[in-house]
Amino acid sequence: MVDVHAAVASYWAAADARDWGRFADLLAPDVLYEMPQSRERVQGRAAYLRFNVEGFPGDWRITVERIVAEGRHAASRIRLSEPAGVGIGITFFELDDAGRIARITDYWPEPYDPPRDRAHLVERF
Amino acid sequence: MVDVHAAVASYWAAADARDWGRFADLLAPDVLYEMPQSRERVQGRAAYLRFNVEGFPGDWRITVERIVAEGRHAASRIRLSEPAGVGIGITFFELDDAGRIARITDYWPEPYDPPRDRAHLVERF
Repeated sequence: MVDVHAAVASYWAAADARDWGRFADLLAPDVLYEMPQSRERVQGRAAYLRFNVEGFPGDWRITVERIVAEGRHAASRIRLSEPAGVGIGITFFELDDAGRIARITDYWPEPYDPPRDRAHLVERF
Repeated sequence: MVDVHAAVASYWAAADARDWGRFADLLAPDVLYEMPQSRERVQGRAAYLRFNVEGFPGDWRITVERIVAEGRHAASRIRLSEPAGVGIGITFFELDDAGRIARITDYWPEPYDPPRDRAHLVERF
């Protein structure tokens, strides 16, 4: 039985350390990465490694806020700290029979102004 | 042992059915609801019921895409269908000792344009 929680923790630790060898070992050869907000997709381990290494050259750090795993699925919430600021990333994972990460679905929720028509129903923080 | 996965499934089923009695029964009296993107917060069961009943009067339906639960924590991804369109909601849950939902953290990721500087590293869908 694969420890899906540990696999996701290793994924983020390897990314934070730029340990791309360890990162690649966690991925299925046919891993499918999707960002539904921008409808971007990357297919296959080699392409996904290139996306990470070439696409994000900056001086970022990752802090894991939460990992929740059940069966072959997991979800995580991370803080991505860059010189320009801090973003929140939410990711859903699915592992294959061999315990490798086969599907990654990423969301990057941005701040927005609170709707005025519900201002009487909430507090602000 | 509380079935956290089932509690979250009941939460969404009750909301979709506007069964606010059943919905309230799932909540801790001091439930804390937060939307970090807009920095809105609702504290307590009565206020959170009011927020749902008065804040969202429209003709929406909820479809659960994924629930992942581990220990006292869970994450879910839903589709919220309204006449105006479909949105994605991602929610993190934490349950108390009595198995009631004590903390709810909600994200509503919006579509965005893909960055051009990584266009050579991705496909579109």
